[in-house]
Amino acid sequence: MRVYSGIDLGGTNVKVGFIDDNFRLLCKSSIQTKPEMGPENVFDRVAAEHNRLASENGFPLEDICIAGMGLPGPANLSEGILINPPNLPGFENCPVRDICSKKLGRRVVIENDANAACWAEYECGKGEQSEDIAFVTLGTGVGGGLVCDGHLLHGFKESAAEVGHIIIYPDGRLCGCGQRGCAEAYASASNTAARAEEYVKSGAASSLSEYDQITSEAVFQEAQKGDRLALSVVEETAKVLALLAVNVQNTTNPERVIFAGGMIKAGDFLLDKIKFYFDKYCWPSRKGETDLAFSTLGTESGMIGAAAVARRHYLAGN
Amino acid sequence: MRVYSGIDLGGTNVKVGFIDDNFRLLCKSSIQTKPEMGPENVFDRVAAEHNRLASENGFPLEDICIAGMGLPGPANLSEGILINPPNLPGFENCPVRDICSKKLGRRVVIENDANAACWAEYECGKGEQSEDIAFVTLGTGVGGGLVCDGHLLHGFKESAAEVGHIIIYPDGRLCGCGQRGCAEAYASASNTAARAEEYVKSGAASSLSEYDQITSEAVFQEAQKGDRLALSVVEETAKVLALLAVNVQNTTNPERVIFAGGMIKAGDFLLDKIKFYFDKYCWPSRKGETDLAFSTLGTESGMIGAAAVARRHYLAGN
Repeated sequence: MRVYSGIDLGGTNVKVGFIDDNFRLLCKSSIQTKPEMGPENVFDRVAAEHNRLASENGFPLEDICIAGMGLPGPANLSEGILINPPNLPGFENCPVRDICSKKLGRRVVIENDANAACWAEYECGKGEQSEDIAFVTLGTGVGGGLVCDGHLLHGFKESAAEVGHIIIYPDGRLCGCGQRGCAEAYASASNTAARAEEYVKSGAASSLSEYDQITSEAVFQEAQKGDRLALSVVEETAKVLALLAVNVQNTTNPERVIFAGGMIKAGDFLLDKIKFYFDKYCWPSRKGETDLAFSTLGTESGMIGAAAVARRHYLAGN
Repeated sequence: MRVYSGIDLGGTNVKVGFIDDNFRLLCKSSIQTKPEMGPENVFDRVAAEHNRLASENGFPLEDICIAGMGLPGPANLSEGILINPPNLPGFENCPVRDICSKKLGRRVVIENDANAACWAEYECGKGEQSEDIAFVTLGTGVGGGLVCDGHLLHGFKESAAEVGHIIIYPDGRLCGCGQRGCAEAYASASNTAARAEEYVKSGAASSLSEYDQITSEAVFQEAQKGDRLALSVVEETAKVLALLAVNVQNTTNPERVIFAGGMIKAGDFLLDKIKFYFDKYCWPSRKGETDLAFSTLGTESGMIGAAAVARRHYLAGN
């Protein structure tokens, strides 16, 4: 049996798992990253965990064809080098691919973590019947991935699909990236919460004023209970995500836009609103062409996708 | 010598030309389309002109490997069928590829005309050093093409790169497509002229009020002479095109955005303004990564690109 390992390197945890040719997750594990220990130590522990997991589950190391690793950006993917990852201090310009390849004793393919998760959707998630998908993660930031004509897009600086930084409102709300009016500045989980908090602090009446800390979960919860302020914040988030989807539709023409990340826990309450605005704002002659969906792969998609990206390289012989 | 023929089917004229493996235009010709004569007649005349051109220039028909044809959308490209082209009445659901293939006695590959022009830029124009370009045509409408990682993007309904319909201002100016606030609604040649005309009609002071008909050429001419209204209209056009470029940068991450079409006759006066706003609005950490340029291929790019797309299929054996 051919086995492919996937490693999802995050600032807090590193997830490790194996998949087969049917993208079935055979086994999985997780260790704390502890980036402060430095790259050599981190990747020694990753390799040890990888080999322990293989041994414990009865997979001979020689059956593992290749390993894929998903990394937070910015990174030079084709060279396998992290550049200056905000959540991995001490990993600046770290040649991750070469270090891991040596420690794991096999070829390692590096991919951006959101791209890897997008590829998991393409291979075995909500996008598996399509050659053209857009993937949008709604977490602290808004990230993404794009598959067009069956290709995972990378682009000139290997930073395609930064769809959270599509400008929705020129000269609008300041984004963490320094642009104004980005989708992320309104519709990330953090900024959905932040917008609600700003309204509450400015004295708007809302059941949210009783919270010590306003989270996006709280905003969705109160909106569902009928709080008008919370509802208006949710409507704006949905509208911005719909406009993002319209702009991606007119750029890479996906069959499906798949949303993932913490905020999709809001379920159909959010999805139906995004669909409403998408239908409102999309090109009339294209209505009904592009479908919107929430991911069902959960938090393992980055790891599965990293393995699936590596598998693709392995099978293509490149 | 291998020769590839390119045919650019427009509502008014059909351009025919041959290129070699260096994308050199060997000879060219043009006939009137006269769509009212119907598809059979039009393609009979196209085939006759194609064969006459070959004979006149000493190219044996057997040296012509394949023909490419650029069509206005909407079309089913992979099946080679025009759907309902506004400028080709009577060509609804016309199986262009099969008709032309029979009449030309060789394989014909169909491509969208803006995609074909984009591919010409990629192979032998402003994009020839890059694997990642965006192409934007500024005419009656705003069309485009996208090459990412060396692939000409098509997408689910083969209608990728409709970049003129990226929404710049939600709920803004009504576009011909039925959406509001599209780039095209502000920054096409027609809408640049239309916006100026609306201001003049509403009584704004401008040297443009002396024109019988306000064209985009007039707007640029008067703006360069210092007319304040004309200048503000040009600034808005440039700003919208810059925002379009920012959004494409964050989606497919091109190395270069290449503008073409009638309006680029305005030259550096326009290009410098687009660059100014692009620099203002783009992600600070990405400043300087993506370059903006005006095409130098002229009106033959559609024909050259159609031939070049066909050549690519021929060489790839698909």
